Amino acid sequence: MKKFYIAKSRRLRSTPYTSRIENQGVTAYTVYNHMLLPASFGNLEKEYFHLKKHVQVWDVAAERQVQIMGKDSSKLVQLMTCRNLSKAKIGRCYYAPIIDEQGGTLNDPVALKLEEDKWWLSLADSDVGLYAKGIASGLSLQVEITEPDVNILAVQGPKSFKLMEKVLGKKITELKFFGFDHYSFKGNKFLVARSGWSKQGGYEVYVENSEAGKNLYDELFLAGKEFQVEPGCPNLIERIESALLSAGNDFDSTDNPYECGFDKYIDIDSDINYLVKRL
Amino acid sequence: MKKFYIAKSRRLRSTPYTSRIENQGVTAYTVYNHMLLPASFGNLEKEYFHLKKHVQVWDVAAERQVQIMGKDSSKLVQLMTCRNLSKAKIGRCYYAPIIDEQGGTLNDPVALKLEEDKWWLSLADSDVGLYAKGIASGLSLQVEITEPDVNILAVQGPKSFKLMEKVLGKKITELKFFGFDHYSFKGNKFLVARSGWSKQGGYEVYVENSEAGKNLYDELFLAGKEFQVEPGCPNLIERIESALLSAGNDFDSTDNPYECGFDKYIDIDSDINYLVKRL
Repeated sequence: MKKFYIAKSRRLRSTPYTSRIENQGVTAYTVYNHMLLPASFGNLEKEYFHLKKHVQVWDVAAERQVQIMGKDSSKLVQLMTCRNLSKAKIGRCYYAPIIDEQGGTLNDPVALKLEEDKWWLSLADSDVGLYAKGIASGLSLQVEITEPDVNILAVQGPKSFKLMEKVLGKKITELKFFGFDHYSFKGNKFLVARSGWSKQGGYEVYVENSEAGKNLYDELFLAGKEFQVEPGCPNLIERIESALLSAGNDFDSTDNPYECGFDKYIDIDSDINYLVKRL
Repeated sequence: MKKFYIAKSRRLRSTPYTSRIENQGVTAYTVYNHMLLPASFGNLEKEYFHLKKHVQVWDVAAERQVQIMGKDSSKLVQLMTCRNLSKAKIGRCYYAPIIDEQGGTLNDPVALKLEEDKWWLSLADSDVGLYAKGIASGLSLQVEITEPDVNILAVQGPKSFKLMEKVLGKKITELKFFGFDHYSFKGNKFLVARSGWSKQGGYEVYVENSEAGKNLYDELFLAGKEFQVEPGCPNLIERIESALLSAGNDFDSTDNPYECGFDKYIDIDSDINYLVKRL
């Protein structure tokens, strides 16, 4: 198969880690939320076997956040998803399909409830922020919708637990799957979730301070030597074997969430108010 | 500068012309509206001089359309843009900045009024369709918002006029700048606008029937031999020399339309109703 270069430009945004992964041998990118997402370090198969056995650090800053704050934030988040979030707890992640007025699946983010009136939607590849802005304008909701400068580092693979314990301390071993909490490294706090785009176990670090994030990135490689740490990225083979869907690849807006296999995230019989039910 | 490959996937959609341009020597892509947009055929400078002198055929299918139909379609289009479209005419194109509730510039499409209740927004790189859907849901507007399978072919350069006349007939020479009309080729009708992402003159063919479009593509190369036709793409050098902005490169949603230099497309003193004025 012929190969083609990617034409870099400001529009295909770099991440705080781009210069690092380019020194570490990234060979191919995809574009995701108008940002560079590494796709290979030269040997997908080798990376696959490594991910299943050791630990990798991934630049997944392209998983952009839509931040929704304000009095009506929970109302707006609920309007966009068919999952019942009325009992959502601060400190928990929720896989929440975003649907349009026809029930088409626009995105499948992880929703993080940060505060009573503050949410992040950690996005797959579409501009859900514009959808949120449109609904908010139309309904005159009291919300502020932004894309904060959050750049996720993922630490994935069976040895991710040992590595993160070594770097962030024992407390992180208590974090449950799809929980998140704050952990300190060299005086900086990081929001860390036990989640990720593989089924090999691991964490996603939601880096809000890029400089601190780059220090953490470097430390993960220093401390990770004994765990055979390598740079990596979501691995096509592992992702498909693990049945982790990719919006735009495995489904798109012409598929409803049932067709995506999202049955357990659809609360069609509850009394929650979301767009498809409202119309 | 290091070069990197693009990792192709279904999510980075191909166009009906992809196999053709890959046979014709495309070397680099960018990604635009979740679709492949050719960025070079190997020598940007040579392509620049060729574009200024002869004629090129471009695969710009990535300029996707948001189709807005229905009773409230004109109302919705106006809500999204600061340009006064109240006197817009069928058969004309309008450069119409899309803004959010803060006045941030989300996109700078060309709006085509197709019928009294039918519009296309020919997009730069962001999901304006989601913004439109959000507003429409919030305000319960009677509209249908879709992304039709329209794949634009651009014919650009000083010899584009002679080439298009040869292929589509004398009538096309009467088309004025930013006007559009329908023209026949081998029994198929094509919507053709006198527009394009260069200042060297030319046309954009809004291809609705992909098979017919591929035949037209091939004919343009056959008939274009005498005009030194070449495959091409929006050229970075020519675009910047011509002061044609690129959303995401030269401005983004943190810039208001004044900061983008769009003064003549802002009707702040008229009585039109758009989001920034409404709030």
